[in-house]
Amino acid sequence: MPETERWTEAFAGEGGEERSFRDLTYDRLLDGADSLPRGSVLLPDGSVVPGYPPIGRIHALGQGLARRFPDAFWAEEKIDGYNVRIARHGAGLYAFSRGGFVCPFSTDRLPDLLDPAIFDDEADLVLCAEIAGPDNPYLQGHPPQVTEDVALFVFDMLRKDTVGFLPQEERMARLDRYDLPAAPILGRYEPHETETVRELILTLDREGREGIVFKSDEDGGRRAKYSTARSNVQDIEAMSDALLDLPPEYFTNRLLRMALFMAEHGQRQNPEAERELGRAFLSGLLRATDMATRRGRVGHRFLCRFRERENACEFVDFLGGQSDPRAKFDDDVPRREGERWVVEFERIHPRMTGKLRQTLDEEG
Amino acid sequence: MPETERWTEAFAGEGGEERSFRDLTYDRLLDGADSLPRGSVLLPDGSVVPGYPPIGRIHALGQGLARRFPDAFWAEEKIDGYNVRIARHGAGLYAFSRGGFVCPFSTDRLPDLLDPAIFDDEADLVLCAEIAGPDNPYLQGHPPQVTEDVALFVFDMLRKDTVGFLPQEERMARLDRYDLPAAPILGRYEPHETETVRELILTLDREGREGIVFKSDEDGGRRAKYSTARSNVQDIEAMSDALLDLPPEYFTNRLLRMALFMAEHGQRQNPEAERELGRAFLSGLLRATDMATRRGRVGHRFLCRFRERENACEFVDFLGGQSDPRAKFDDDVPRREGERWVVEFERIHPRMTGKLRQTLDEEG
Repeated sequence: MPETERWTEAFAGEGGEERSFRDLTYDRLLDGADSLPRGSVLLPDGSVVPGYPPIGRIHALGQGLARRFPDAFWAEEKIDGYNVRIARHGAGLYAFSRGGFVCPFSTDRLPDLLDPAIFDDEADLVLCAEIAGPDNPYLQGHPPQVTEDVALFVFDMLRKDTVGFLPQEERMARLDRYDLPAAPILGRYEPHETETVRELILTLDREGREGIVFKSDEDGGRRAKYSTARSNVQDIEAMSDALLDLPPEYFTNRLLRMALFMAEHGQRQNPEAERELGRAFLSGLLRATDMATRRGRVGHRFLCRFRERENACEFVDFLGGQSDPRAKFDDDVPRREGERWVVEFERIHPRMTGKLRQTLDEEG
Repeated sequence: MPETERWTEAFAGEGGEERSFRDLTYDRLLDGADSLPRGSVLLPDGSVVPGYPPIGRIHALGQGLARRFPDAFWAEEKIDGYNVRIARHGAGLYAFSRGGFVCPFSTDRLPDLLDPAIFDDEADLVLCAEIAGPDNPYLQGHPPQVTEDVALFVFDMLRKDTVGFLPQEERMARLDRYDLPAAPILGRYEPHETETVRELILTLDREGREGIVFKSDEDGGRRAKYSTARSNVQDIEAMSDALLDLPPEYFTNRLLRMALFMAEHGQRQNPEAERELGRAFLSGLLRATDMATRRGRVGHRFLCRFRERENACEFVDFLGGQSDPRAKFDDDVPRREGERWVVEFERIHPRMTGKLRQTLDEEG
């Protein structure tokens, strides 16, 4: 039997977890099974929204590109946000997180972020997009091109019950036809154009962009990502106030990637990059020290805006429940502000809080 | 029965481990017991060389100093080396490591490093010293004042079978009388002189020194250490080529300490410190990347010189055995060089080697 016919079985028993959002009940896939990635979603009509698969990383552009993309490939800008898959079910349009949860925030804001007309024509389409911006509820830090609220960037398309991405030309035609907001498509390159791609990534690095996703239409739509040096600095800067609360690999991987980038692109002596990296660590740690001294705890404040009060409440339940016990909501959530419902909360960094309080208290 | 009479019992059974060095057989204490620190040594004549106890760290100078030293205290320069205790047994003079091993290298070099006359007068004395310099076999990095080979800095004195350090005045008299090389004694301060101590540490920071050890003659000779911002940078610079091979706390603790130092001493905006910190990470990682590319492995080369061939061989056995399986000795160790026997080896960083090879190979 075809692979896709076995998909619904993957959700049975321990494989899936039943969840609900308002009047939608669905199952999310807890681990990858067959060709179905973790976070795939089984909808009530039996259709499956495939998960977004993990994308490999290139560390050495020169060799990595040639090895992974022996034929022509596309380069698109990688956006520093969080990944959602947008799918219609019945009359509703939903945004699913990488893990396969309906994200109440993203779902609420979809009408602001894109025109849903495409789903009228192709109800089985799934848009894969990055949501990014300073007022998102998940990530500290945001890309330079989104300076307020959040924006959405479509970067891939799937179909329900189907393996593989829509080919590049078909996706580009739809982006154009429906005027969908998209991650910038930087161009199509032949394998011998590595030098051009190298210049592209150096430009993105200077502009503080995150990196490139390379895409092929061959091999089931092979993808690979490559980050700029500066994106590593920005990630470290965003999270160094949580130095002890993240897995150490968060920082060590980014330090290594930055060094590999600098080694490959002739940036061994780069005082500006050195200073930015040092400041990335110190600025967050000084923020944390100040917070511990002034307020007795270290955390990061988040603010996000909803169209509907009920979605805001769903979000508070979602984050306040099992999915993030570290979120401490303000007393007045959601509070009315003009047309919107605003939710503010603080995500506590318990290990930084503990370490700094212990350090400062024992001597205070 | 007095505490010290129970000491030899601590080495019985699982408590101690029998070791030998040339014709000396001794026991080292595997864990602290009663007032006897880990690394204490039981000599064949039944006498005990007490271990050097762990020293607490001050993170906030202003409050930490006042809290720990309510009375007058001494400030001495902290030297960035490894800790040995030097004791006579029979006709031999031995240097014991913090863990209670005879260090074949340090023991061999004692005649170069200090005049042993003091032991003729006080055979039960134990000198606690830091050995530091570029040609030491344990540490990457060295203090600015030792630019070749190694030097020794006495910083405390103990007696066999006795609890507690010699009082400051008695130690200083002996340093003077026997002209022993010592860690610089910076002065005696009253609790109200915190400002002077603060200026002292800022001077040490500018000079690239490691920090201060504070000492009281009260409370059994209380000690506490305080590091400069720059010592953290130097530690990171020395070890960033082993980023994945050290416990992550090696780096995170130093980053936190640096931020606490900068916050306390009005250095929030310090572009030079930022650049040095960034370079500390990147220089080591670029070293590692180069090594992985050029030689297929990441490691650090060590060179040390011995007076006696037999000690050099003991050292090779010591390091090549259980105590450091990562040391890869050159084929010709020990090799004769003038009056000395030279041992060169490389300490491999296996996780950095693995990660960088995997990263570079998969794309090569």
